[in-house]
Amino acid sequence: MILFNSDYTEGAHPAIMQKLMETNMEQTVGYGEDAYCGQAREYIKRACGAPDAAVHFLVGGTQANTAVISSILRPHQGVLSAESGHINVHETGAIESYGHKVLALPSEDGKITAKQVKTAHREHWKDESFEHIVQPKLVYISHPTEMGTLYTLEELEAIRLACDECGLYLFMDGARLGYGLCAPDTTVTLNAIAAICDVFYIGGTKVGALFGEAVVITNPELQEDFRYIMKQKGGMLAKGRMLGIQFGELFRDGLYYDISRIAIDLAMKIKQGALKKGYSLFMDSMTNQQFLIVDDARLAVLKTKYGFTYWQRYDEEHSVIRICTSWATRDEDVKKLISDL
Amino acid sequence: MILFNSDYTEGAHPAIMQKLMETNMEQTVGYGEDAYCGQAREYIKRACGAPDAAVHFLVGGTQANTAVISSILRPHQGVLSAESGHINVHETGAIESYGHKVLALPSEDGKITAKQVKTAHREHWKDESFEHIVQPKLVYISHPTEMGTLYTLEELEAIRLACDECGLYLFMDGARLGYGLCAPDTTVTLNAIAAICDVFYIGGTKVGALFGEAVVITNPELQEDFRYIMKQKGGMLAKGRMLGIQFGELFRDGLYYDISRIAIDLAMKIKQGALKKGYSLFMDSMTNQQFLIVDDARLAVLKTKYGFTYWQRYDEEHSVIRICTSWATRDEDVKKLISDL
Amino acid sequence: MILFNSDYTEGAHPAIMQKLMETNMEQTVGYGEDAYCGQAREYIKRACGAPDAAVHFLVGGTQANTAVISSILRPHQGVLSAESGHINVHETGAIESYGHKVLALPSEDGKITAKQVKTAHREHWKDESFEHIVQPKLVYISHPTEMGTLYTLEELEAIRLACDECGLYLFMDGARLGYGLCAPDTTVTLNAIAAICDVFYIGGTKVGALFGEAVVITNPELQEDFRYIMKQKGGMLAKGRMLGIQFGELFRDGLYYDISRIAIDLAMKIKQGALKKGYSLFMDSMTNQQFLIVDDARLAVLKTKYGFTYWQRYDEEHSVIRICTSWATRDEDVKKLISDL
Amino acid sequence: MILFNSDYTEGAHPAIMQKLMETNMEQTVGYGEDAYCGQAREYIKRACGAPDAAVHFLVGGTQANTAVISSILRPHQGVLSAESGHINVHETGAIESYGHKVLALPSEDGKITAKQVKTAHREHWKDESFEHIVQPKLVYISHPTEMGTLYTLEELEAIRLACDECGLYLFMDGARLGYGLCAPDTTVTLNAIAAICDVFYIGGTKVGALFGEAVVITNPELQEDFRYIMKQKGGMLAKGRMLGIQFGELFRDGLYYDISRIAIDLAMKIKQGALKKGYSLFMDSMTNQQFLIVDDARLAVLKTKYGFTYWQRYDEEHSVIRICTSWATRDEDVKKLISDL
Repeated sequence: MILFNSDYTEGAHPAIMQKLMETNMEQTVGYGEDAYCGQAREYIKRACGAPDAAVHFLVGGTQANTAVISSILRPHQGVLSAESGHINVHETGAIESYGHKVLALPSEDGKITAKQVKTAHREHWKDESFEHIVQPKLVYISHPTEMGTLYTLEELEAIRLACDECGLYLFMDGARLGYGLCAPDTTVTLNAIAAICDVFYIGGTKVGALFGEAVVITNPELQEDFRYIMKQKGGMLAKGRMLGIQFGELFRDGLYYDISRIAIDLAMKIKQGALKKGYSLFMDSMTNQQFLIVDDARLAVLKTKYGFTYWQRYDEEHSVIRICTSWATRDEDVKKLISDL
Repeated sequence: MILFNSDYTEGAHPAIMQKLMETNMEQTVGYGEDAYCGQAREYIKRACGAPDAAVHFLVGGTQANTAVISSILRPHQGVLSAESGHINVHETGAIESYGHKVLALPSEDGKITAKQVKTAHREHWKDESFEHIVQPKLVYISHPTEMGTLYTLEELEAIRLACDECGLYLFMDGARLGYGLCAPDTTVTLNAIAAICDVFYIGGTKVGALFGEAVVITNPELQEDFRYIMKQKGGMLAKGRMLGIQFGELFRDGLYYDISRIAIDLAMKIKQGALKKGYSLFMDSMTNQQFLIVDDARLAVLKTKYGFTYWQRYDEEHSVIRICTSWATRDEDVKKLISDL
Repeated sequence: MILFNSDYTEGAHPAIMQKLMETNMEQTVGYGEDAYCGQAREYIKRACGAPDAAVHFLVGGTQANTAVISSILRPHQGVLSAESGHINVHETGAIESYGHKVLALPSEDGKITAKQVKTAHREHWKDESFEHIVQPKLVYISHPTEMGTLYTLEELEAIRLACDECGLYLFMDGARLGYGLCAPDTTVTLNAIAAICDVFYIGGTKVGALFGEAVVITNPELQEDFRYIMKQKGGMLAKGRMLGIQFGELFRDGLYYDISRIAIDLAMKIKQGALKKGYSLFMDSMTNQQFLIVDDARLAVLKTKYGFTYWQRYDEEHSVIRICTSWATRDEDVKKLISDL
Repeated sequence: MILFNSDYTEGAHPAIMQKLMETNMEQTVGYGEDAYCGQAREYIKRACGAPDAAVHFLVGGTQANTAVISSILRPHQGVLSAESGHINVHETGAIESYGHKVLALPSEDGKITAKQVKTAHREHWKDESFEHIVQPKLVYISHPTEMGTLYTLEELEAIRLACDECGLYLFMDGARLGYGLCAPDTTVTLNAIAAICDVFYIGGTKVGALFGEAVVITNPELQEDFRYIMKQKGGMLAKGRMLGIQFGELFRDGLYYDISRIAIDLAMKIKQGALKKGYSLFMDSMTNQQFLIVDDARLAVLKTKYGFTYWQRYDEEHSVIRICTSWATRDEDVKKLISDL
């Protein structure tokens, strides 16, 4: 079986494993206060062009999302998110478990718009009973989205403007950020993201690390006491230097981008191969997740050789499947897949 | 100004006030353990045909909803509700504040169907990632709904059946239950509700009491330790006998029904009056809430003499307003309103 | 049986009942936005000498405590309280149910000291692992305490100073505030409390109202969005004018003080009577709660005629009981009790 | 600088690193459903003599504690713990953040007794106001404790019996379990623990793994839906096989014990060395944490060469320090330390 189920079917990029091995017997203090974490923070601030940002390394995405969101919101405030947002559908209600409602906005492609944000804000405040309704205070976006789509720079800037007008904070879930940064034709850079968002994170788990997400808080108002909340939310690692070592490798010389590009290139091959063979795309993705519409007979065959994610039924005879690539995907496996499509 | 804003614009029914006065100087123990509460519990169990039910008196609807829901669910479980359900939109996220996601189902008329319940359950369990998704465990319905509509007995029985098939509990928010029980042509009785639901409450605040809701737990599995949870959720009143006295009056000789009938009769007059004058109904309600489509010019005039709830915009020139009646609504005010429509 | 169990064994002061009756058929809007609430807010601000305070009427003490505390704290912050504080022992973990740890400080008499506050703050910040420990951010005191004791003005000022030095907020639970204000020899006035605390509440339930607590937020930083949180925590009453009417009566012409004085006078009679008969006091209280040490034989006799609270065992042959008076306590019942002691 | 600060100053045991390297490019599904996790579960069930246990791998101790505790308790229930218990003092209120009060019991040595458990239970249920008080439902113990002490088998059996009598569950935090199992003279085996506890965990982070804790649920009542709660609480790892691989190494051939024994042997050397030099022990520990009383002058010197934890002040001239050993501690460093004591 060849697995295209996700971008975390293998371990870590070999350079990361190598560094973990080399440093294994060194002694450091715990909880992210070691020199490796310090160094990695500097790399990331440099890569973001954000020297005053606070950078924190958390174990995983659920912890990053709960720590960020619950560090910002007061009890009566909620977070606007696309219906398909990871926090809304795939974290077993972790945000609600800390007391906050996810205010879901309809979305076909995983994205939300500045207009939706402004409308949600206006609808809230013009309601006679606004105090009986959860107050929107934070906007959560994923880039790339859970459907592989990307915001344009203009869209992000418009959302920022909407947030400024409405007094909302903007938080980007970048669990797959590398694939967004390296997608063909995008103009959304890490610098732009750091300038636009109040807080965002750079995903490691799905972009070559064993695990780990780097939360970058650019808005100084939101920086206070974040480590307490990381700890409370289970996001702080005892052997914290492992996160510093991994993000150090990823951001010292651009490995994060290299890894992402490999995955993107292979994903584009799959996409072109599928289109050439007459497949339709469920979602036109420029990132490492590809969503194909497959007829059920073919699906049954593919399942015997390949792992992938069954996304949803398309019509009575077709299904949508998600295929993921990563730095570890082998060119030969992609060729086989295309040939079997 | 004549107010039709809600069914709680006045104090309590005079018989209740009278009894509160008469008993004012009596001494009783607190927290609902007095004889008045004991007596009122017996009246309610008799009225429900549910001798083994546990009956608890809570201060208000938000406390009743949070106490019931959080007494039932484990942390990863959520509650299915119509999008328009009170818990989903008008309690400032109280359910989420205790950790649970409200799983909103689309609804045009405030009701949900047995089919929606079964589908939600099936969708959950067939998802590959079901453990990453909040598990539906409880169904919340309002009767009457927030839009004045009513379930038929057949619909309720079908939902019960769906719950049984799916291993779900059924909870009815009866904040306006009296108006449902006394609506023209309904066959949904209190006995039927007690037989169908695992837990429900009989609203006092909106049906003649100063405040108070009587939670009836018919499913013995759900009865344990409920008073702890009432207390924790702010639902337990120190001078608890006030709730017993009020519900005693309401259920000793059928005052609860008398009160509801008055409101219904007046609401039907308004409805017929409006229809006769050519108004359209936004929702065809048989209960004490009436939803009229009003053109904006007329609306401006009405607002100078009457209070009501602005519900939503209907189209560019029309709005939807909600008009409520209660036991305290005066016949002459209804006549004036109809004449001014 | 004559009940001295608590200060809420009867209904409301007759003047309050009278006013509720008189206004019963008036129409008002709900949720505390009516004129009665407006008027009562003005009376209270005047009584506090705090024209810029925000005043909110909540249903009961548990809701007042959870609303205030969760409106102030971030998730990693906790509230310092005497071990015996109501929030720590008698609200079924309501504060924890909203996510916050109560940081209990030892106390013999229900009070805490400025020194304890400063020590707790210093201990936190000097700990190497401070980010792994709940951060103290708020000080909760009860006045009178749960043991009937009172802070002196000097003690309160010292706690205020400690809070200022440590960056902590100060919250006073005044569930029995009247009995504190009217205690013999105290110099702690309502004006002083308003000047010293960031937020406090004036108890109604235990001081002559049917129910209700008036939260007074003097610190403008803490005023934003409080009504949302009241609603979420179940503290907002639909027929809100009932709270305005009650607090209006209590604060229009000083009824709150009159009520308290009656209870204090009777409590002092009981105390003097007990001392004269050779009883020892468990706690020397100047308020309406009296704590007597009673030998178990006598206790058995008293129980046949009087209700009171069994507080705790004192030694093998003695117990501590709590006797409460209120505005409704009858002089003749106090005489009987003293004679039976 | 030589660090004795904790048992997580290095990476993982070389055998673990080796296995992670070897398997790095293999493809597996995520979230702990791979064959490595399956295999490791079997090893652990075998080691525990508990074939019907449910075994789950979580990222860290805070997540393990919150997942276990919140999977068991209803909202009004709390967990009994020694005052010094990790959940009470060093997880930034994570348990409270999910709504539950930690019911702290006094303890000099980090242990609690069966008698304390029974007393706490009895005190709760005999209180007139028990419904106003958090209900004890779960007992949390650490073995070894946070002070390096150990329960005897008899003590554990007595606590089990107390739990059975009182209807309480028993949960053991085994973050340092290996050091307990391998301590000189203990008769507490993994089999005994599995037989005595309803649920416990086997710590990896502090016993040779990069990170990870293996939760073992022996009581079938507590097994349902645990993976949902793991996910919600941030305890589920995307690249879950890393936990399986690590615990597979640790439990295939007894590496977990070997690792623990190395640390214990070195700790005993330090202890004997210190005693020989006339030091007093703050706590007589048979595990890898040693607590020495050091005079402040000596402390200042030691700090220039060694890292350790400052535990607390002992008297005006002495402090308590904690010294930790692990599998990675070097014999030569121990010798140096002893010589410098």
